[in-house]
Amino acid sequence: MTAEIICVGTELLLGDIVNTNAQFLSRELAELGISVLHQHVIGDNPDRLRELVCQAKARSELLVFSGGLGPTQDDLTKETVAQAFGDTLRFDEEEWQKILSFFARTGRTPTPNNRKQALVPTHGHKLPNTHGTAPGAWFEADGCIAVLMPGVPREMKAMWAEQVRPVLLARQNCTIHSKTLRVLGGESSIASKVAPLFECENPTAAIYCKTGESEIRVTARAASQDEAEAACDARIAEFRRILGPNAYDVDVPGLEYTVVRILREKGLHAATAESCTGGMVAQMLTNVPGSSEVFGYGFVTYSENAKSRLIGVDPELIQQYNVVSGPVAAAMAYGALRASGAELAIGITGLAGPGGALPDKPVGTVYLAGADARSGKGWLRRLTLGGYQERGIIRTRAALYALDLLRHMALELPVEEALPLSGSDMPADSLVL
Amino acid sequence: MTAEIICVGTELLLGDIVNTNAQFLSRELAELGISVLHQHVIGDNPDRLRELVCQAKARSELLVFSGGLGPTQDDLTKETVAQAFGDTLRFDEEEWQKILSFFARTGRTPTPNNRKQALVPTHGHKLPNTHGTAPGAWFEADGCIAVLMPGVPREMKAMWAEQVRPVLLARQNCTIHSKTLRVLGGESSIASKVAPLFECENPTAAIYCKTGESEIRVTARAASQDEAEAACDARIAEFRRILGPNAYDVDVPGLEYTVVRILREKGLHAATAESCTGGMVAQMLTNVPGSSEVFGYGFVTYSENAKSRLIGVDPELIQQYNVVSGPVAAAMAYGALRASGAELAIGITGLAGPGGALPDKPVGTVYLAGADARSGKGWLRRLTLGGYQERGIIRTRAALYALDLLRHMALELPVEEALPLSGSDMPADSLVL
Repeated sequence: MTAEIICVGTELLLGDIVNTNAQFLSRELAELGISVLHQHVIGDNPDRLRELVCQAKARSELLVFSGGLGPTQDDLTKETVAQAFGDTLRFDEEEWQKILSFFARTGRTPTPNNRKQALVPTHGHKLPNTHGTAPGAWFEADGCIAVLMPGVPREMKAMWAEQVRPVLLARQNCTIHSKTLRVLGGESSIASKVAPLFECENPTAAIYCKTGESEIRVTARAASQDEAEAACDARIAEFRRILGPNAYDVDVPGLEYTVVRILREKGLHAATAESCTGGMVAQMLTNVPGSSEVFGYGFVTYSENAKSRLIGVDPELIQQYNVVSGPVAAAMAYGALRASGAELAIGITGLAGPGGALPDKPVGTVYLAGADARSGKGWLRRLTLGGYQERGIIRTRAALYALDLLRHMALELPVEEALPLSGSDMPADSLVL
Repeated sequence: MTAEIICVGTELLLGDIVNTNAQFLSRELAELGISVLHQHVIGDNPDRLRELVCQAKARSELLVFSGGLGPTQDDLTKETVAQAFGDTLRFDEEEWQKILSFFARTGRTPTPNNRKQALVPTHGHKLPNTHGTAPGAWFEADGCIAVLMPGVPREMKAMWAEQVRPVLLARQNCTIHSKTLRVLGGESSIASKVAPLFECENPTAAIYCKTGESEIRVTARAASQDEAEAACDARIAEFRRILGPNAYDVDVPGLEYTVVRILREKGLHAATAESCTGGMVAQMLTNVPGSSEVFGYGFVTYSENAKSRLIGVDPELIQQYNVVSGPVAAAMAYGALRASGAELAIGITGLAGPGGALPDKPVGTVYLAGADARSGKGWLRRLTLGGYQERGIIRTRAALYALDLLRHMALELPVEEALPLSGSDMPADSLVL
């Protein structure tokens, strides 16, 4: 099946908003095995819309619309598409009652224009909107389907998932299952290791690049849901075998969710002492619902005084090694352990820029230490994140490394590229990386 | 002038990436007074591309392309557009030398395909790429211009700013200046107050909604740069007069930048004691370059113990009023003052959800306190942010309110909807909002 996506809205043509609907629909259609040949954005202009619909209907089997279902006189998408598909619109009393009760609930009065929103296809069918007032529409003629959905992403996504996707899936005569593997590291380093797995047509795999990590989305089509899920799992296992522990979890929003889950499973608590990341690690951990079970204490020791007063970093240590140094990061991590009573702690100090570079420490130099109260042991890494230049990116990448160190400590995985520490030998000269 | 934007790339049709280029170009063209009638996304398919280019050339005066300039055999955008504009391509030795030296610098060997990238218009002209290897192209015929730029946003934006925008601006026969006013509050509450100002054709004003705040972008066209700038300033002043102190700054990335600037100007320091926001306020402040001058201490007191041990909140206070309460927020703010030596501090405790709601405190209930060491005085607000439901949004909005309270305290502005506090009468019953 071939498809075109048509987004209607002046706010898109003016660049007031970015067209996330087109991306969402393209990705969903690709997963259904439907080829998207065109995406269009057009304003509320009936002549231009009519020309486009006629062209698209002649060359593609499915037209997916978002937007243009509003109550104003300008919104003529439904009327224009109905005409192109040889259909008409009828007034639907049930939809009108829904609109009236929505206005009553929000204490407003509907205008005569709002009656337009209760118009639905006569021969095609309506698509109920469970998150807003404007129903969608489904037209079908001459071997072509037109699906009209609202432009508000929340409403469109719900209508897609509840009423459009299942029907298209049934017509494609298969079931589909997707899983997303999250992997630390950049797209190019990952892609080169697992390139052959991206060539396969079923399951398909696509890689999406994020700051400091990537998502690999695996989608399998099969006759049954169980088969599709099993094919997904098998392919994910292949990715994990090749990528090792950098592939950290499946179907989670981010590394902080994995870290909180592991800490909870192991009955551990974590504390943070942050300088250059300024609370970002604490903020990420506490964004996970239920994180209070595993995280109680975060120290944002942005000044030298704060490092000494809150977590007992010896001012002489700072004097001797510089505040951006391995010994200070280690003292921060051990200090956070003592001040919090947690089993695990991390300490981060670095240069996020743009100013402040030292001769031997360019912007992006970050010292990350982890300490484990159970063994008294710890780890220290010097990260060089300067290639990314931007302050926000340096901080985000440093925070990801910190979360990953917590994960390694909690799971007792070997920490590569790190100097082992023990509470007693800190600060030894070996700590100056 | 009327325009169409044509983005070429299979990764857009597959939904692998969101089309930010279309938004960028739409916004820029709107500012130049050029009407964008269509946006298209199309794959690397010469037949479909040829059909689209011929249609677009017949109805619009400017076609702006991004993408399709890569070295592979599939990338035929330049050839296809040249043909539609009655032009041909010639091999450009200067561009080829640039490509060779780029490959030499990165230690790679060019393939014969790379020679394609050195092809430039014979009658039109090339657009040098200062951020990558593929030059752009400018074709012109039959009253229509086609501008071809790379798909990589960084390369496209630079080529647009350096070589395309100035030429189009000259043809539009005017200069342009833009300024962005940032305003706390939602789009609908702002738009209703200043609606007439959005109707004006010069300067234009557009509103962009962000979490908890909005951006108003004012763009003036005039014969000279000074006139355009003066017209911008005058319109911004009108907005500020109507919107009051909620309109907090011009041309800044966010409220934290304004707060850091004000603290620095006043020679003040701020400290934070955060529970439900978990370090977000500290993280935002420290993302501003140079924030170490005004921020040294952040306490992420996520557990009850941490509130008592780090900033001296009396456990009996928590016992008596609940940890999510006005007295605890106030004690956190005063505790952060004492523990840090800063002049200003904020304390935040609340329910970010999804669980944990109490009978009188639904999810989204947040207590925000501010304390001022200079006067001993403070303020306390109860925020009700539950309508937004999502944990991340509740936290972000609470953090914005906290930054805004710091701004009000630093500027000694009246703090509306807040209970005044003094260090001595805390905890009084009046604190239980």
